Amino acid sequence: MPIVNIQVTREGTSPERDAITAEEKAAVIEGVSRVLLDVLNKPLDSTFVVIEEVDLDNWGWGGLPALEFRRRRAAAGK
Amino acid sequence: MPIVNIQVTREGTSPERDAITAEEKAAVIEGVSRVLLDVLNKPLDSTFVVIEEVDLDNWGWGGLPALEFRRRRAAAGK
Amino acid sequence: MPIVNIQVTREGTSPERDAITAEEKAAVIEGVSRVLLDVLNKPLDSTFVVIEEVDLDNWGWGGLPALEFRRRRAAAGK
Amino acid sequence: MPIVNIQVTREGTSPERDAITAEEKAAVIEGVSRVLLDVLNKPLDSTFVVIEEVDLDNWGWGGLPALEFRRRRAAAGK
Amino acid sequence: MPIVNIQVTREGTSPERDAITAEEKAAVIEGVSRVLLDVLNKPLDSTFVVIEEVDLDNWGWGGLPALEFRRRRAAAGK
Amino acid sequence: MPIVNIQVTREGTSPERDAITAEEKAAVIEGVSRVLLDVLNKPLDSTFVVIEEVDLDNWGWGGLPALEFRRRRAAAGK
Repeated sequence: MPIVNIQVTREGTSPERDAITAEEKAAVIEGVSRVLLDVLNKPLDSTFVVIEEVDLDNWGWGGLPALEFRRRRAAAGK
Repeated sequence: MPIVNIQVTREGTSPERDAITAEEKAAVIEGVSRVLLDVLNKPLDSTFVVIEEVDLDNWGWGGLPALEFRRRRAAAGK
Repeated sequence: MPIVNIQVTREGTSPERDAITAEEKAAVIEGVSRVLLDVLNKPLDSTFVVIEEVDLDNWGWGGLPALEFRRRRAAAGK
Repeated sequence: MPIVNIQVTREGTSPERDAITAEEKAAVIEGVSRVLLDVLNKPLDSTFVVIEEVDLDNWGWGGLPALEFRRRRAAAGK
Repeated sequence: MPIVNIQVTREGTSPERDAITAEEKAAVIEGVSRVLLDVLNKPLDSTFVVIEEVDLDNWGWGGLPALEFRRRRAAAGK
Repeated sequence: MPIVNIQVTREGTSPERDAITAEEKAAVIEGVSRVLLDVLNKPLDSTFVVIEEVDLDNWGWGGLPALEFRRRRAAAGK
C-alpha cells in the first residue's frame, strides 16, 4: 500500500502548453504504479499517487528560482 | 508539537458542491487535533494541521486517475 | 481516499517510556480515520494514515532544537 | 526537476526477508525516474527519488494498523 | 542533495498584499540553500527548495483555523 | 507559522563521521528559522523545522542510487 507524492513544476511538455495534460498525468500514474507492482509486488489497488504541480516561482534550485537557474546554466553552456 | 498533513481530493461532500467547505475544514482541524490531545497528550496549541486539496486528475489509484478507478469499481459491482 | 501524514517527536507519553506504544498508534489511526469519515464521508477503507516519529534532535521550534526550546520556555515561566 | 517521495511499509517482498533489498530500491529508482523521462521529458539528472520505509505499526488503513486490516480482509475472504 | 519543503500560509508580509512576492520567494530560496551550504557543505546546485502556499482556511493551529486561533490569542492579550 | 521539512542523506560532513551532528542540526534549525523571520516576518516561535535523514540506498538521483550516481559523475570528470 504505497503512497507516491510527485512534485513537478507547473509547465507544459511543449512550448505551446503551460501545464501537463490529463493524459500525461494518467500515464505517469500508470507507469509509476506499475513499477511498484513489478518490482515490489504491490497490488495496483493499494497504491496511491498524488501529483503536485508547483509554480516555477516557488521552486528553487542552485539557490535561485528555477527559471533563473536554468537561464544561467544555459548561458554557461551546460 | 505534531504536524499533520491531510491530502484529500478537491470535491464536495454532496453533489451540489465542488469542494469541502470552511466549516468542514474547521471540523477536521478540531477533530484531528483533539485525537492527538486525547491519545498522546499533545497540547492543542502545539499542533499544526495542513489540508491539501488535490485535483481529481492529479490523484491516482489502482494505476488510474481516481475518477476512472471509481467508475470501473462501480461498474464491477464493488 | 485521503492520505494523512502525522509527524510527532519520538518520545513517550509518560516519563518511563521513550516512544509511543503500538496501542497509542492504533488509537491515533482509528481516531483520525473516523474524523475523516464523520466530517467528509470518506470511507475508512480508502484512508491511509502514516505516523512518522522524529528524533528530538531533528525537530526545531523557535529556532532551537525542540528540547532546548522547551527548557527555555519552562524557565521563562510559560 | 521532479521530486518523488515513495512511502512503503518496511517488509520484504518474500517471506524470508523483512525489508526490501538495495537491488529492489535501485530498480524502483530507475523505473520511476524513467517514467518521468518518457512521459514528461524530465532529464534523469534532475530527478530526485526518496524512498521512506515505514514500520507496519505506523501505517494505518481502514482505521486500523495495516497488519490488522490485512488480517480482517483475508478472514472476510476478500 | 537536500530537498527542502516549506509550507507557509498564503498571505502577504504587509497589509496591502495578499501573498508573498516573487522577490521574497527568491530570498527564501537563496537563504535556505545557503544555510545548507554553510552548515552541511551541500553544494547549491544539488539543493531543491519547494515553497507551498496554503490557504488560511486550510491551516489549523490550536484546534482551530489559523485566523480564528490568532484572533483568540490577540484577544487573550498574548 | 511555517513548516519546513528538510530531507538530507544520512552521512557525515567529514570522512570520519557517518551522520550529521546535533550541533549541525541545531545550526540548520537556527539558520532556516532566521531566514523565514528576516524575509517573511515569521516569528521564530511559530516555525517548525523537521530534518529527515535518508539512507543513501533510499535516495535516487539520475535514475540511480545516489552513491552510484556520484561515482559515475566523478569518473566522468564532472
